[in-house]
Amino acid sequence: MKVEYINPFVESIRSAFSTMLGIEITRGEPFIKKGSHPHHEVNGIIGFSGKAKGIVVLSLEPEVALAATEAMLLERPPEINSDVVDAVGELANMIAGGAKAKLEQLCLSVSLPSVIIGKTDSLKFPSTVTPISIPFHCSWGGVVLEFGLIEEPAEVSATA
Amino acid sequence: MKVEYINPFVESIRSAFSTMLGIEITRGEPFIKKGSHPHHEVNGIIGFSGKAKGIVVLSLEPEVALAATEAMLLERPPEINSDVVDAVGELANMIAGGAKAKLEQLCLSVSLPSVIIGKTDSLKFPSTVTPISIPFHCSWGGVVLEFGLIEEPAEVSATA
Repeated sequence: MKVEYINPFVESIRSAFSTMLGIEITRGEPFIKKGSHPHHEVNGIIGFSGKAKGIVVLSLEPEVALAATEAMLLERPPEINSDVVDAVGELANMIAGGAKAKLEQLCLSVSLPSVIIGKTDSLKFPSTVTPISIPFHCSWGGVVLEFGLIEEPAEVSATA
Repeated sequence: MKVEYINPFVESIRSAFSTMLGIEITRGEPFIKKGSHPHHEVNGIIGFSGKAKGIVVLSLEPEVALAATEAMLLERPPEINSDVVDAVGELANMIAGGAKAKLEQLCLSVSLPSVIIGKTDSLKFPSTVTPISIPFHCSWGGVVLEFGLIEEPAEVSATA
């Protein structure tokens, strides 16, 4: 995956947290994850297609997911409930949409998000992709953005 | 979600199991899942975008995932390993690609798959989507195909 794909995602998550949630996040060093455990317990997943195919996973500590939902709904959810699922999906959607706009040469479009809650043994990408993990920190806790993109060689085939 | 979206997925999973894996699957009655637990422990997730956005989850009993990998690689994996992840991702990709071809009016394209292994508390779609679950059975065990599609009202917006 090209290094120049990283910055659009970093800018997009910063902008989403700042404008939607009113909180600043600071970036750590990107890394290639060893093992396949998700970084945190609340994971929003969203797919890309276009001239590249990919996946983005927004991995949040539970407190970050709760506080983000509170910032969006102006009311704190009592637990990780369907409001939190919707908020995390919407946040993943905003981040993917922002990165997509900055990568217009790839003509990306974004799928619906799905949200996974709980300690999952393994959340894996196909072995043809080496996803990059970018850790962030805000006063609510830890966030990791993990994504992988593969450029399509040419027109999408009939079954792809 | 329109009822006519169901058949392309049913035909596609039947065809993928028959041609790729050499096994026939029989369909049960489609239902709307209560609760948010994934149906089985091995889940391949793939996103759609185009004139509709969506997600498909291919949920397999572990034995089905192992036997499907064996059918594709002609060697039985000793456990749920990266070969199984790739095989399940490829199977989800084939099913999504087959349905996409049958729904050409929606101009769908398909994202990369991700694969989730293990007992996850919750795998949820946004509350704006009511996904349909279609159970299948083959001699290896149980399979559920769960999917939700939302038609886009018009051109995709800048952040979508």
